[in-house]
Amino acid sequence: MSDTPSKKPFSDFGFGEKSSTEGYRALNKDGTFNIVKTNIPFLERINIFQELITVSWTKFFGYVLVIYFVINLIFASAYWLIGMESLTVAKGLSPIEQFLEGFFFSAQTITTLGYGRVAPIGLLANIVAAFESLLGLLFFALATGLLYGRFSKPISKIKYSDKAIIAPYQDINGFMFRVVNTHKNQLLEVEATVSLSMKRDNSESRDFYALNLERKSVIFFPSIWTVVHPIDENSPLFNLKSKDYFDKDFEFITTIKAFYESSGQLVYSRTSFKPSDIEWGKKFIYPSKRKNGKIYIDVSLLNETNDVPLN
Amino acid sequence: MSDTPSKKPFSDFGFGEKSSTEGYRALNKDGTFNIVKTNIPFLERINIFQELITVSWTKFFGYVLVIYFVINLIFASAYWLIGMESLTVAKGLSPIEQFLEGFFFSAQTITTLGYGRVAPIGLLANIVAAFESLLGLLFFALATGLLYGRFSKPISKIKYSDKAIIAPYQDINGFMFRVVNTHKNQLLEVEATVSLSMKRDNSESRDFYALNLERKSVIFFPSIWTVVHPIDENSPLFNLKSKDYFDKDFEFITTIKAFYESSGQLVYSRTSFKPSDIEWGKKFIYPSKRKNGKIYIDVSLLNETNDVPLN
Amino acid sequence: MSDTPSKKPFSDFGFGEKSSTEGYRALNKDGTFNIVKTNIPFLERINIFQELITVSWTKFFGYVLVIYFVINLIFASAYWLIGMESLTVAKGLSPIEQFLEGFFFSAQTITTLGYGRVAPIGLLANIVAAFESLLGLLFFALATGLLYGRFSKPISKIKYSDKAIIAPYQDINGFMFRVVNTHKNQLLEVEATVSLSMKRDNSESRDFYALNLERKSVIFFPSIWTVVHPIDENSPLFNLKSKDYFDKDFEFITTIKAFYESSGQLVYSRTSFKPSDIEWGKKFIYPSKRKNGKIYIDVSLLNETNDVPLN
Amino acid sequence: MSDTPSKKPFSDFGFGEKSSTEGYRALNKDGTFNIVKTNIPFLERINIFQELITVSWTKFFGYVLVIYFVINLIFASAYWLIGMESLTVAKGLSPIEQFLEGFFFSAQTITTLGYGRVAPIGLLANIVAAFESLLGLLFFALATGLLYGRFSKPISKIKYSDKAIIAPYQDINGFMFRVVNTHKNQLLEVEATVSLSMKRDNSESRDFYALNLERKSVIFFPSIWTVVHPIDENSPLFNLKSKDYFDKDFEFITTIKAFYESSGQLVYSRTSFKPSDIEWGKKFIYPSKRKNGKIYIDVSLLNETNDVPLN
Repeated sequence: MSDTPSKKPFSDFGFGEKSSTEGYRALNKDGTFNIVKTNIPFLERINIFQELITVSWTKFFGYVLVIYFVINLIFASAYWLIGMESLTVAKGLSPIEQFLEGFFFSAQTITTLGYGRVAPIGLLANIVAAFESLLGLLFFALATGLLYGRFSKPISKIKYSDKAIIAPYQDINGFMFRVVNTHKNQLLEVEATVSLSMKRDNSESRDFYALNLERKSVIFFPSIWTVVHPIDENSPLFNLKSKDYFDKDFEFITTIKAFYESSGQLVYSRTSFKPSDIEWGKKFIYPSKRKNGKIYIDVSLLNETNDVPLN
Repeated sequence: MSDTPSKKPFSDFGFGEKSSTEGYRALNKDGTFNIVKTNIPFLERINIFQELITVSWTKFFGYVLVIYFVINLIFASAYWLIGMESLTVAKGLSPIEQFLEGFFFSAQTITTLGYGRVAPIGLLANIVAAFESLLGLLFFALATGLLYGRFSKPISKIKYSDKAIIAPYQDINGFMFRVVNTHKNQLLEVEATVSLSMKRDNSESRDFYALNLERKSVIFFPSIWTVVHPIDENSPLFNLKSKDYFDKDFEFITTIKAFYESSGQLVYSRTSFKPSDIEWGKKFIYPSKRKNGKIYIDVSLLNETNDVPLN
Repeated sequence: MSDTPSKKPFSDFGFGEKSSTEGYRALNKDGTFNIVKTNIPFLERINIFQELITVSWTKFFGYVLVIYFVINLIFASAYWLIGMESLTVAKGLSPIEQFLEGFFFSAQTITTLGYGRVAPIGLLANIVAAFESLLGLLFFALATGLLYGRFSKPISKIKYSDKAIIAPYQDINGFMFRVVNTHKNQLLEVEATVSLSMKRDNSESRDFYALNLERKSVIFFPSIWTVVHPIDENSPLFNLKSKDYFDKDFEFITTIKAFYESSGQLVYSRTSFKPSDIEWGKKFIYPSKRKNGKIYIDVSLLNETNDVPLN
Repeated sequence: MSDTPSKKPFSDFGFGEKSSTEGYRALNKDGTFNIVKTNIPFLERINIFQELITVSWTKFFGYVLVIYFVINLIFASAYWLIGMESLTVAKGLSPIEQFLEGFFFSAQTITTLGYGRVAPIGLLANIVAAFESLLGLLFFALATGLLYGRFSKPISKIKYSDKAIIAPYQDINGFMFRVVNTHKNQLLEVEATVSLSMKRDNSESRDFYALNLERKSVIFFPSIWTVVHPIDENSPLFNLKSKDYFDKDFEFITTIKAFYESSGQLVYSRTSFKPSDIEWGKKFIYPSKRKNGKIYIDVSLLNETNDVPLN
């Protein structure tokens, strides 16, 4: 599943062969891509479930309300066509009042509310109402299932340091950034990947490198994790200067994957660092203090660094 | 989990030992198999949940409607046997009208609609109705659970290029095809496998090879991915010509596996390429253009190729 | 996750250190274990969800019925204590009739049926009924959730050949058995393991070996799969005769793990072969025939073998 | 996913760089961490679903009750504002009685109970009631979904021996502890990890080591499993005495991960052993006896040891 990091670039990273051009950012800070697919036929594009699980909450509730309204309108019309004498509706109502009685009777039927002030008497009205209550159960199974599916959707609370740093690491230097799980529930089996995208010389294309990490995964993640790529002779960053990062239009693409212990959900997170997001000769400060046998970590200092001479 | 690709064939691929014979296609373009298992006893074959999660929507709704109708018929008969004086039914109805009142009362009970125009009075009718409403909750839990399970079933929107190509790759040639996720939600940890099935000389059996890929997986899949099998000296395709592909009745079997980021669902996709689906000396065109810091990819050009001399 | 097969035994296999003794079978044909854990305190043992997801259907429905009955009994008593004048019950009923009215009113409330023939009027009765309907929604959420959870529980339809065989394999012999997925839905990423348990010489303990397989996994499983352990010089079976199998009280423990494509469910299956389940010098017949471009496999011939001389 | 155990320490284990200081315990016996993250902005911290899936049952039911009460209060006020003549409420009630009728009507509407003794007549009341019943379905979808999600949450019944031991293992010694699944449902693919945290000489920081295990995983877990770290020359424990364990403030951190066969749930478990939890020169007794072809294991003897001379 994982890429064996190596000094050899690969030409394709799922971003496509020519995701190049000057100063391009493939992945935004917030994890969205600057890639748009066009000209896809509707039927090949549409996946209703995926669509409804990801539309905004406003749209989702809008859809539910509109469908609820339209279904009731349709059934109200049905009861109207069947004739209001098929329902236990008071006599002497105006046509509009009758239609409204049918409309609200429909609402009471589709939600299986069933006050019974208005109830079906005639055969046809009974058949339609029996069908409508069945339809209601099925429709609301979808609506409420989607609602819960959206609500319980895995969302990571992983926060990255704003900047990556080039800092001393053992005898050499390292490319580092920090991550923290800001939610109090534990994340387990946390895996990080860091990839480097750069302009290929004299070409429109870009090369991609999977970068070696000091540690690819941690079992627990109760604290702040500093992800470290050691810049040794196997690293594509070896001997490069800050200027080279800009010249080659570097983009460091990082992913984090983990399990929420409390719910067994798998969460993914990603971000990218461009050369302007990288500070040289800095060292992260570890903001912990001990009190009463516990260690307290001040997450607001996630970005705090000190100056430090590089190796 | 993955097969270590090698030049050594293996005789079984889950397709069985003799899935041979001239011009045979094991896997259709749409991912279904040309293999039928027969003579399986009913009890060993049946898995009701799997059955109901995969029957056509028409059949599924048909089942629900029929069961709803039959249950109501049974309970209507029960109320009829108990006697209509146990329900608050108007006097002077004909037997048929009485039965219908019982039928619709049953429908209003099993859906927990409960208008109450008709309600149980007698002890037996009350017991039956109390049981029916319990049964209704349980029955509709299955029906609506299945409905949502079917609706939320993982469906990949992965599209393959119609043709595979033999194109230059670095100093050698490669077997290539392209895939794209046509849905806008991200697929992550996308893994590809390509296997080759071919006739064994002087035998009814076939040999299977797991083909080496330039990249077995990509972390992201926002764009078009060209899956490449380099035809080096370790490849069973090494030095073979198009004619050999037909003579050995090649079948390239490809699978894609990925995670929907939005829902955590695992999706599988597969297709196959026969020699007639392979174009020699072609090169895929990468249909991207850049505008406003974004890259636009025209998916309708997934199959577009240029002529190119082979190595 | 997988055990690196090797000639070196390991003393513990999760079965415990001394799961020995003559003629012992750790794993039954149907996948249950002949191991019983005793003296576990109740609180350490109980996991209500796991309990309710695995009790028999009879017990499960029994529990639901009993709880439904008892809750209604409790609420009937509550309404009785509050006084029947708090419900819209007909006057002049006997105490028993009044209690029954309360009981069925409770049933109509907890299922949110709510006919309304009997309805609460007084403050206390209204409070109790409002609470009961809330309780009903929560209780039935558990009951119906469990029902669907039980119903949708992953069940494999993997069938093993009754016997394992020792048959020629390439230049040597192999230990082989066959498996087939008898359900028509596809299983994917099918992984097999075969372990060997045997008596340790002059000891009460047993040794366990993970056996090398020709193929540990197949991507597809549309057909019959013959799982093969090659008896080469690295195999603990090397040069052993049938008599040795009995003397060392062999037990071959096999597992199959796979994904249901249609539902993304992970299924596990296991069985064991004792020396009496093994036939020497037999070869499985592959029961396929071709018609109309499809291959038909007669699953009823899963156990069919031919005599064959061993290498 | 797993750490390649090695003699080389790593400075970060997800616990942070300076989780040191004398006599510190990072992980409690019950699996909670002694690490507190502070100063996290509310919006970065909150994940409502994770919150509601993990709050105590008391709080959860408290929330449900309070929200149920407040929503009914709001809708009661709405009906009151619309005017009680819009509901079929008896005449001549006091204002408080009228408000209560509205309140309980709301409760009957939001649960879709709908007795109908009180029912909406006017247009506005009908609109509000139709909306309230829709809202009720959606709200209870969340409440009951969360209830079932909490109830079905994976909970391991894995129990550790209170003490770890240093016992002879083959020609050397080993660090050992025992685990048992106290629930009768099977756990499969059980994986263990053991890590060692120790003070770094002349430093505030700690070093972490992933310890080699005799077996990292067992396929089945029907019995007691003794997890063994062999103290060979590659072990950071090599040649160390009990006193060194205290001097370096050792902490052995162990994790177990497994699948519940019955439900496909992934469960995690963890604990830690401090030097005071370790007994030297002890050997676990294996509490099994055989009867009627089954092996009985007395789990209450999980901690039983014998004295044994070390190698």
